[in-house]
Amino acid sequence: MHTIAKTYKKKDFPVHMIRRFLEPGPILLVSSCWRGKTNLMTMGWHTVLEFSPSLVGCMISSGSHSFDMIRKSRECVLNVPTTNLMRQVIGIGNVHGDKIDKFEKFHLTPQNGTYVHAPIVKECYANLECKLHDDRLVSKYNFFIFEVVKAHAPASPKYPETIHYTGDGVFMLSGKHVNYQKFFKKENL
Amino acid sequence: MHTIAKTYKKKDFPVHMIRRFLEPGPILLVSSCWRGKTNLMTMGWHTVLEFSPSLVGCMISSGSHSFDMIRKSRECVLNVPTTNLMRQVIGIGNVHGDKIDKFEKFHLTPQNGTYVHAPIVKECYANLECKLHDDRLVSKYNFFIFEVVKAHAPASPKYPETIHYTGDGVFMLSGKHVNYQKFFKKENL
Repeated sequence: MHTIAKTYKKKDFPVHMIRRFLEPGPILLVSSCWRGKTNLMTMGWHTVLEFSPSLVGCMISSGSHSFDMIRKSRECVLNVPTTNLMRQVIGIGNVHGDKIDKFEKFHLTPQNGTYVHAPIVKECYANLECKLHDDRLVSKYNFFIFEVVKAHAPASPKYPETIHYTGDGVFMLSGKHVNYQKFFKKENL
Repeated sequence: MHTIAKTYKKKDFPVHMIRRFLEPGPILLVSSCWRGKTNLMTMGWHTVLEFSPSLVGCMISSGSHSFDMIRKSRECVLNVPTTNLMRQVIGIGNVHGDKIDKFEKFHLTPQNGTYVHAPIVKECYANLECKLHDDRLVSKYNFFIFEVVKAHAPASPKYPETIHYTGDGVFMLSGKHVNYQKFFKKENL
């Protein structure tokens, strides 16, 4: 059922430019680590908030096991899956609790990050290591503001096929990319 | 340059289901009204926060004229443009200030909303009338939490071609939609 996913040759990616991955709105796999245990969740409610520092806001449901792990450890990795990981995205969204090693169950490879204990998902296209920057909206809205402290992404493909959720079990897959740079005023790019 | 955009036959859409339009991450046109003047801006940094009440978080740059108008009027409309409005999306992003009537300049039609004074953009696929729900993160992060109080959308097409920004003048256009409902646990749809 779970095909072995391709892996990418990644390098450092400038953290102030991670809008490229997040602004189009893909579903993410969020990895966390607390007291030696790791976890994964599927998450679609996020937004870029600032270029520098590189801030991202994420709604992480308080009913989830990841919520507690991220709140306590104050870190996570936002991993950008592509369409070859569709089964994992759905499967991880279906599984709750801390009884299952989701990396093992879904044939994903945890790798060490540089600045966080939460594992990088090797098979994902891009990985954003995050530290909790502001938790003032966590209790009221389950809204975490993270700073992306390190980003990993491959040089190629520049625009991978990402997965976007619309609800009701229907996903939108990213389509073609079009460059309209010549129509922009430079300061608005 | 600006082709006349198609219009849609819209009806009420349940506000607790507007994730369908926003979660995939499209660029939006935000309309506002303050003291009889209207304005439009292009905005890509937003996230769904809650189903019911229907909450959406938006980062609206404090340098923009819309920022002041929305902060003062405490309302706006989030309009979802499709690819036939690409020139308007870019053009509105290029224009700043309050000297120009952007509806007129970009051949867009303002319509009255039901609950807000901010105009609905007739040519956009969906229109979400919003009231400011929580402004506690506005001063620090320019982050507005809105409640969607009324939504307008056509029954068809169910999945229009939306516009997703990646930075650097490059847009991702929405691709095909795939239904994986049968792989979901019902409570996770």
